[in-house]
Amino acid sequence: MTAELLQQALTKQNDSTSPLPLSQALLLPRIAIEDTTPVIDGGDFAVKAVEGERIHVTSNVFADGHDRLAVRIRWRSAREEHWHSVTMTELGNNAWDGSFTVQAQGPHHYCIEAWIDQFASFCYELGKKHTAGVPVSLELQEGRNQVLHAAERNEGELHQRLIQLHQELSGLLETEQVARFLHEDSAELMAQADLRPYLSTSPIYPIDVERRQALFASWYELFPRSITDDPARHGTFNDVHSRLPMIRDMGFDVLYFPPIHPIGRSHRKGKNNSLTAGPDDPGSPYAIGSEEGGHEAIHAQLGSREDFRRLVAAAAEHGLEIALDFAIQCSQDHPWLKQHPGWFNWRPDGTIKYAENPPKKYQDIVNVDFYAADAIPGLWMELRDIVVGWVQEGVKTFRVDNPHTKPLPFWQWLISDVRAEHPEVIFLAEAFTTPAMMARLGKVGYSQSYTYFTWRNTKAELSEYFTQLNQSPWRECYRPNFFVNTPDINPGFLHQCGRAGFLIRAALATMGSGLWGMYSGFELCESAAVPGKEEYLDSEKYEIRPRDFSIPGNIIAQIAQLNRIRRQNPALQTHLGLTFYNAWNDNIVYFGKRSEDGSNFVLVAVSLDPFNAQEAHFELPLWELGLPDDAQTQGEDLMNGHRWTWHGKTQFMRIEPWNQPFGIWRITVS
Amino acid sequence: MTAELLQQALTKQNDSTSPLPLSQALLLPRIAIEDTTPVIDGGDFAVKAVEGERIHVTSNVFADGHDRLAVRIRWRSAREEHWHSVTMTELGNNAWDGSFTVQAQGPHHYCIEAWIDQFASFCYELGKKHTAGVPVSLELQEGRNQVLHAAERNEGELHQRLIQLHQELSGLLETEQVARFLHEDSAELMAQADLRPYLSTSPIYPIDVERRQALFASWYELFPRSITDDPARHGTFNDVHSRLPMIRDMGFDVLYFPPIHPIGRSHRKGKNNSLTAGPDDPGSPYAIGSEEGGHEAIHAQLGSREDFRRLVAAAAEHGLEIALDFAIQCSQDHPWLKQHPGWFNWRPDGTIKYAENPPKKYQDIVNVDFYAADAIPGLWMELRDIVVGWVQEGVKTFRVDNPHTKPLPFWQWLISDVRAEHPEVIFLAEAFTTPAMMARLGKVGYSQSYTYFTWRNTKAELSEYFTQLNQSPWRECYRPNFFVNTPDINPGFLHQCGRAGFLIRAALATMGSGLWGMYSGFELCESAAVPGKEEYLDSEKYEIRPRDFSIPGNIIAQIAQLNRIRRQNPALQTHLGLTFYNAWNDNIVYFGKRSEDGSNFVLVAVSLDPFNAQEAHFELPLWELGLPDDAQTQGEDLMNGHRWTWHGKTQFMRIEPWNQPFGIWRITVS
Repeated sequence: MTAELLQQALTKQNDSTSPLPLSQALLLPRIAIEDTTPVIDGGDFAVKAVEGERIHVTSNVFADGHDRLAVRIRWRSAREEHWHSVTMTELGNNAWDGSFTVQAQGPHHYCIEAWIDQFASFCYELGKKHTAGVPVSLELQEGRNQVLHAAERNEGELHQRLIQLHQELSGLLETEQVARFLHEDSAELMAQADLRPYLSTSPIYPIDVERRQALFASWYELFPRSITDDPARHGTFNDVHSRLPMIRDMGFDVLYFPPIHPIGRSHRKGKNNSLTAGPDDPGSPYAIGSEEGGHEAIHAQLGSREDFRRLVAAAAEHGLEIALDFAIQCSQDHPWLKQHPGWFNWRPDGTIKYAENPPKKYQDIVNVDFYAADAIPGLWMELRDIVVGWVQEGVKTFRVDNPHTKPLPFWQWLISDVRAEHPEVIFLAEAFTTPAMMARLGKVGYSQSYTYFTWRNTKAELSEYFTQLNQSPWRECYRPNFFVNTPDINPGFLHQCGRAGFLIRAALATMGSGLWGMYSGFELCESAAVPGKEEYLDSEKYEIRPRDFSIPGNIIAQIAQLNRIRRQNPALQTHLGLTFYNAWNDNIVYFGKRSEDGSNFVLVAVSLDPFNAQEAHFELPLWELGLPDDAQTQGEDLMNGHRWTWHGKTQFMRIEPWNQPFGIWRITVS
Repeated sequence: MTAELLQQALTKQNDSTSPLPLSQALLLPRIAIEDTTPVIDGGDFAVKAVEGERIHVTSNVFADGHDRLAVRIRWRSAREEHWHSVTMTELGNNAWDGSFTVQAQGPHHYCIEAWIDQFASFCYELGKKHTAGVPVSLELQEGRNQVLHAAERNEGELHQRLIQLHQELSGLLETEQVARFLHEDSAELMAQADLRPYLSTSPIYPIDVERRQALFASWYELFPRSITDDPARHGTFNDVHSRLPMIRDMGFDVLYFPPIHPIGRSHRKGKNNSLTAGPDDPGSPYAIGSEEGGHEAIHAQLGSREDFRRLVAAAAEHGLEIALDFAIQCSQDHPWLKQHPGWFNWRPDGTIKYAENPPKKYQDIVNVDFYAADAIPGLWMELRDIVVGWVQEGVKTFRVDNPHTKPLPFWQWLISDVRAEHPEVIFLAEAFTTPAMMARLGKVGYSQSYTYFTWRNTKAELSEYFTQLNQSPWRECYRPNFFVNTPDINPGFLHQCGRAGFLIRAALATMGSGLWGMYSGFELCESAAVPGKEEYLDSEKYEIRPRDFSIPGNIIAQIAQLNRIRRQNPALQTHLGLTFYNAWNDNIVYFGKRSEDGSNFVLVAVSLDPFNAQEAHFELPLWELGLPDDAQTQGEDLMNGHRWTWHGKTQFMRIEPWNQPFGIWRITVS
């Protein structure tokens, strides 16, 4: 670290007020290494990756003059002592690229190193001159000297082999010598003896490697208390067992619960967010904390800790993992108000200001002050311990409520600290705020993020947004989890669109990103809204809402098939690798997703019109398959298994929303 | 520096292999400052500016929660001890901007600082609540407490004024109190007492401020030895005096000479780059060094040192400055070969490899080895001393030959070192190589650079190139000097285009950039080429070539007028501020340049067809003037002074190359 900082200090000479001293200039790298990717903010934050991912590195590497350069990537996981190394390839115009695969979870680092490859430079010139018929006897003598010097500065077997090469060369005719110099064995031998002159090293750039579920997972959200057949009977963890098979059959991986902690009584919200709760109103689970306990405790009506453990285990047996909500707010009955009054800002009248996330008001909630004198470090450590406590209960995924209203350094520390011991833990940021803050939460460590997807409805909006998420800086720092709805967001589009509209949004979410989420009721096409608002009428946040999951008109089968297609097609297991293609109809979004190795190529067409049939001519991306415009390709409808042959580039589609408002086709070469 | 490095070390925590310790997380900035511009490579290199330039700074600045931020730019020149400071303005979505003007030459630095403005946050909320009719008595009490605490932590007059404000507030009715809090006097007073909580500071970014001629200058190149009426008589510095009035009348500022040093005899090139020189062949001035001396000496046939000084003085009287060529190569007769054999790489046969810049071969030239053991630091210091020696002779501008074949750290040091004492010195990089290296030479300190302009001929090529130079990273690091020709480049376009073609290229160069250059003969439309090559036949590099500067068909008057227009229109004194507009003809390039304050707006249309008349409908950029499509504007032809009124946005032009292949019009609002 010290050497690196020193080097950075040297490079940053322009910061100083005196000119660059010659002694320092002589230490500056002769070889420039610029514009390396992937890098976030110059290396201040780690680039996101998942286990088994191939990291493609590009960089501009160049020096004065015409010498050949040797350029390598070095990388290692934080747990490894030694660096791996791989050669980069020159692409022209000083651009180089290379790649390596990260296998383990946790922090990794890479850098680029380059040096002047004197033997390669020699061989390059020798070959050119020899081919041009220019006399090369002097060059050959120089080459033999290079070999001899390499032998002299080495010992043992390498010395022997170099001496042998030198002797061999000395006995050959000129043309044979040229051939011997240019043979790959000579290059390999000389590379072993290479002094790596003018070695330059880029800064070390971090990569954060997570388990694959950080990039590919399907989330299902439910309120355990609503898993009951009678609104008067509070559902329990034990009740949730009955839902597991169906949720798994729909193809979900993550089962996410809003807070499961004791709910405060003071200022408890009543039905439909009213300021006065009736005696039987259960209150918002986000008003965390009562005499029973705080964030570490379980709301007694949900069951015991033992019940929770049994549910986690049962879910795991069904291939589901439980995700909890981490909502760092307190009801006014939270034990911390008495135990740690110094963690809060008290007003002159002895109250604490309730929480707001304009325009929303949370009269039943107060916030801690992370930088209050008494909160450092007690509050920070307590919060970390709470997360770790749930991790120890088998919870490996956390949805974090409103992280943008808590300090960024807190998240940077908490996530780093938790993942140092538990690299498998995933944090999803529920922030709906400015783009800069959304991205920054990814940078400081969030694995996944809520998105603007819910408010992107037109072809132009969706194209722009999906494309942006595929570009820097978003692609390096931000993994979008496309929720089609949440208890807080009943999207305007769904209010009047009918069943076809729900299928449209499900198709866009499932095909658009490796991560998508659904709050229960969506599969039943629930859409009753508070008039004029994007909020659910009779919101489950304030009352127990049993549901009939076999209600006619549901889209459970379609969701199950969409999730099945995702599992079977690697191209769909990420938001990356998405490209929009031409379909000449503004009501039809048409894009392709292709796996990194190119073997899996899925085309998705979604009509945005839930009421009318839409038709369009569209282009098959034959050029991406290296095919001519008149090529023949095979299509397969992934929703129903039909297969056909496409002839040529321009095709026609008709989408009837009353049947299915989208098409998902795998394209393969005949 | 140490504190700053420490902070960078903290920010770079992701580099370390252990998780972020809480103690360090607590020191991380709560406020994020991101994507600041202008910045080159994260601050590794200085952004270019000239005296009197307004530096526009933008940044994304944000923190958790809903507090108001105070955001400022701090800046200073390296010679100043104290920082200046200016408030930034919020533009929405976390974007902020501000600006300051740099006055002195030399290094400057700036950074952004931000803190949570607690009083502004209080006032913002107070205002909103009061307007909404919400009771605010508790808020008012909190506000008075803020004022009281501010008073308590200050002394003297500030204490008094705060106490007074507190007393005044305590005596007011609620509505009056609100007004008093929201009054700008209160904000100003509280700002003085502001503790600047959560102060965050961006890295410090360097700016390099040069004299205006670094951005705006017209270069004229001649070989002094050709200023003669007889090829058998070597021209001298004294002969050049006769050319000064005409060069100045053409509007040039810089008179640039190829190397003026003694020319070697060994391997001297003959006419047309032949390998054998006749006894009277003068040789290439780039084969520097003979028994008479090296880079510090003057070729005796040009005159004495005294003659040179007189020429520099006479040029200055004409408003011209002399620029010299700094070409770090040696003829084989250069004194260094004997004095400093360790500065060169000797081959096994006792020779030195001659220079090549593929595909060109320079058999009369050898290169030094900057990193030879004996060359450090002797060669580096010698070269610096040579430059400083010429600076002391009054030469403030250097054109550097092939800088991309010399080490980048050498230039970074040399330019920094020379400019520390002589900030007025300008270096022009004559590099024709990869884009990355071209940009990097600007980053390490070159004021100006040769460009690809010579090879950009079509409308698409010119649009793309001019636009690219106006964008990051080019706009921050690279000032293009558009040479229409050089002794080395006789552009293909000029071979057959006739006089109109020369006018086309002159118009593009003079209007495209603040910097342009011309090698003598261009004004006479000289174009005879070595068949099939972009080289001049009978190149002046190898022989003395007297010229008749009054030859019919010359374009001297047009060049003079173009340069006059440049002097009179600030918009044309930079390559920046250039935008392409619609002209519906692929043979007509049409762009506008507007001065930063918007007051000077010049439209340029250049036909690329030297043979045929071209016509086009084109758009006046009324929208940039805030005018409707049917507005009336005044046009002025800057070549001939004609004036007219334009009605509406769409206009028509006809360009007849046999008259003048371009139009330059100043547009003003009626």
